[in-house]
Amino acid sequence: MKTVDINCDLGESYGVYRMQWDEAVLPLITSANIACGYHAGDPATMRSTVERALEHQVAIGAHPGLPDLQGFGRRRMEITPQEAYDMVVYQIGALDAFVRSYGGCMHHVKPHGALYNMAAENMVLAEAIARAVYNVRPELYLYGLAGSQLIQAADRIGLRSVSEVFADRTYGSDGKLTPRSQAGAVIQQTELALAQVLRMVREGIVVSTEGAQVPLKAETICIHGDGEHALFFAREIRIRLEAEGMILTAAGTP
Amino acid sequence: MKTVDINCDLGESYGVYRMQWDEAVLPLITSANIACGYHAGDPATMRSTVERALEHQVAIGAHPGLPDLQGFGRRRMEITPQEAYDMVVYQIGALDAFVRSYGGCMHHVKPHGALYNMAAENMVLAEAIARAVYNVRPELYLYGLAGSQLIQAADRIGLRSVSEVFADRTYGSDGKLTPRSQAGAVIQQTELALAQVLRMVREGIVVSTEGAQVPLKAETICIHGDGEHALFFAREIRIRLEAEGMILTAAGTP
Amino acid sequence: MKTVDINCDLGESYGVYRMQWDEAVLPLITSANIACGYHAGDPATMRSTVERALEHQVAIGAHPGLPDLQGFGRRRMEITPQEAYDMVVYQIGALDAFVRSYGGCMHHVKPHGALYNMAAENMVLAEAIARAVYNVRPELYLYGLAGSQLIQAADRIGLRSVSEVFADRTYGSDGKLTPRSQAGAVIQQTELALAQVLRMVREGIVVSTEGAQVPLKAETICIHGDGEHALFFAREIRIRLEAEGMILTAAGTP
Amino acid sequence: MKTVDINCDLGESYGVYRMQWDEAVLPLITSANIACGYHAGDPATMRSTVERALEHQVAIGAHPGLPDLQGFGRRRMEITPQEAYDMVVYQIGALDAFVRSYGGCMHHVKPHGALYNMAAENMVLAEAIARAVYNVRPELYLYGLAGSQLIQAADRIGLRSVSEVFADRTYGSDGKLTPRSQAGAVIQQTELALAQVLRMVREGIVVSTEGAQVPLKAETICIHGDGEHALFFAREIRIRLEAEGMILTAAGTP
Repeated sequence: MKTVDINCDLGESYGVYRMQWDEAVLPLITSANIACGYHAGDPATMRSTVERALEHQVAIGAHPGLPDLQGFGRRRMEITPQEAYDMVVYQIGALDAFVRSYGGCMHHVKPHGALYNMAAENMVLAEAIARAVYNVRPELYLYGLAGSQLIQAADRIGLRSVSEVFADRTYGSDGKLTPRSQAGAVIQQTELALAQVLRMVREGIVVSTEGAQVPLKAETICIHGDGEHALFFAREIRIRLEAEGMILTAAGTP
Repeated sequence: MKTVDINCDLGESYGVYRMQWDEAVLPLITSANIACGYHAGDPATMRSTVERALEHQVAIGAHPGLPDLQGFGRRRMEITPQEAYDMVVYQIGALDAFVRSYGGCMHHVKPHGALYNMAAENMVLAEAIARAVYNVRPELYLYGLAGSQLIQAADRIGLRSVSEVFADRTYGSDGKLTPRSQAGAVIQQTELALAQVLRMVREGIVVSTEGAQVPLKAETICIHGDGEHALFFAREIRIRLEAEGMILTAAGTP
Repeated sequence: MKTVDINCDLGESYGVYRMQWDEAVLPLITSANIACGYHAGDPATMRSTVERALEHQVAIGAHPGLPDLQGFGRRRMEITPQEAYDMVVYQIGALDAFVRSYGGCMHHVKPHGALYNMAAENMVLAEAIARAVYNVRPELYLYGLAGSQLIQAADRIGLRSVSEVFADRTYGSDGKLTPRSQAGAVIQQTELALAQVLRMVREGIVVSTEGAQVPLKAETICIHGDGEHALFFAREIRIRLEAEGMILTAAGTP
Repeated sequence: MKTVDINCDLGESYGVYRMQWDEAVLPLITSANIACGYHAGDPATMRSTVERALEHQVAIGAHPGLPDLQGFGRRRMEITPQEAYDMVVYQIGALDAFVRSYGGCMHHVKPHGALYNMAAENMVLAEAIARAVYNVRPELYLYGLAGSQLIQAADRIGLRSVSEVFADRTYGSDGKLTPRSQAGAVIQQTELALAQVLRMVREGIVVSTEGAQVPLKAETICIHGDGEHALFFAREIRIRLEAEGMILTAAGTP
């Protein structure tokens, strides 16, 4: 039987600023990417998010980002590969300590925002990030955009990769996401998005905006947890996948 | 034969701001307390400092501080024990990842500045810090002011403590450091300071400013590495201790 | 006829983290204390909050805090008077530039959180803050806790002070707020709080928890804007004050 | 007689991290660009640097940078024009308050590092920055790379621009600086650099790396203050310019 993972970014509160949906999202997902204090998250949030994820038996991943709280890690920065390496080691370690403090094991790493996007395109940066993960814990999974440089970098250095797809985004014939700046980047109709997810997961194929059937590895589905609609959509995906006989489980777990 | 440890705070550079004495200090010490990005230090500095410490076979410790780069972690903050716990877990983890990435093992934790001073006096805070260390890695040593609440907290929860003394500071008859705001807090003459160190290490006794012989556990000596004079003094201590037959080695190592 | 000011802290969003009540609060108040980027607030938030306050003809004040975003400026820090002076000058200036950019004039300064509380008790700190305000713009009003050191400091150096009272907090016979840690610190019944406000504003008297009639200067009333209940209460105060013939206007304005 | 300005970046210390050359640089320059707390600088440093600049009768400018202390504002960030506008308003205001507190007047604004370079090339960003300066104080001068978009933006909106040249950098035939990544970007021989400066200032011409005579407006010369050699070179420039009859004075001042 086919397995698939559903992941979501969590633990992105900071001080008095609370992201309020984490608790509602946890029952819907199989792996959580927890912010590590750079683009979001603080030590108290990391601790409590790790604790809740363990209670829900959700696989825990570090979600390292750029050092830009004001921009939530979404603004690209001209960093060197060495800087990327260093900030990823730092953030993985910080989260790992919380996981260890509960007797848990970290499962994966997924870069955040601009770091994720830069690593998808830039091989040297991608390798630096993959190397950082490998050097801290070679058994970790590295989550990255399906078909991206980050996935290739992981594969090349012997780190296990997990290819991520998006349920509600359209793809070009080159397998890349349609940029959000273009019309048609986001699939508005739930039914269409669900159909796309199913085909990606079952057949490993996405139909591009130009109508081509593009092969795409879909090992984990990214969902968003920021609002009523996002949660509704996440629930729909989960229900449909289970109805179709998929087993929802974190990548690599039985 | 009697052993003693010499420790120093290292890795307190940040970005373009360089603390230039680290390289000169490394040959003089047996354990290094490396800043973790809160009061000082950044990922690049942490990585390179860990690398150099390993090359010098100096035992590596995390040096967590308050989140106050502008004040270098020296300004007391009214934090809760839970906040202390969380920030210590975070910082130990961040440094630990760099140590692991080189195949090394972290050896100890020593709080920095105001956090060190607050933990010396406040038992609840001290326990929170000791608990944080224990929960991340129960095999770590916790360095604290000799006779302080932090040492007691470590002992109580089963964490191995290392009692720290200062070569160039005077002590009251209660075993506490003379506050820097008082006259006579710092010993100016090298010879007097060396004599105090020797007696503390060999006999476990310090002569207080009131002339009393006060018992004091001296397992590690804190030296400073910030300038020519500090380095000269550190060298003198090292030479004298070795001349007197002491074995210089990190706490707990053979 | 009697005038009174109603003030509220605004502009405390940061990056993606939004405080959502600012827009609802603006019609209810006569002066706004806008965060300046230290305990909360960022340049984009400062600009838009200034713009909205000007549209609502609400008097604009700087709301400087401690450099502690993670703790929202609520954790006391052991800062020197010089450090307090410098951080207040910095933050007033930053907000002032936004006000000037719209052709407006800053009206007042009200310290935030722990800085406010520390300045209420510590005369040296209070004077440093008052001096900072005076040196940047001597025509500014300084808002502080009624009867506090901050009010006295302002008066002494020739800065115009505005005494602040709290509608829903009880007072001791010494004129100080009952600490939140004690039972009865907060008045739960709206009607009692309204009665207390009216008496403070009209007669300059508050009845202490011990039943004494304590004189108290009530020039501005602090309201909170963080939730439905807070807004309901703010509206009630406003309606009652107007019904009783009070003129609601920022301190010193006609 | 011909006048020319010599400017230098100052006040780039942060907390315990001290840039030690500011005092030595002040007698050599006619205008100072003072860091404003984003890429470097803190309130205490800003205050003391403003005080010293006023004592030396050096014109004071704000030196706003990107919010990246770890990278010293040298790493490009993908910011929007609105974000650039907001961060420039904020930083100008913060410095202005210190200048006002001493009864002084701010003279100019010069963006720092990556913000300077981005504004040199990107017209939309350049206009946002020029607009920020204009909206806070329309009488300020805006310093920018000679021939850059920033200079053009200032001119277009009615802000007075000051064209900056570099003594020790070579130029291409398009009037742009040779990138530091290319060989020959920096002029190593003092005599050649001095000759280039003189020709730029007196004739408004620079000889490009390809040998072409390129017109270039040289209203202010940027010097560096970070080390013995930089100071030696700055002194040489100053002596030579004065020997050639130039009057050294901040842009726009008699």
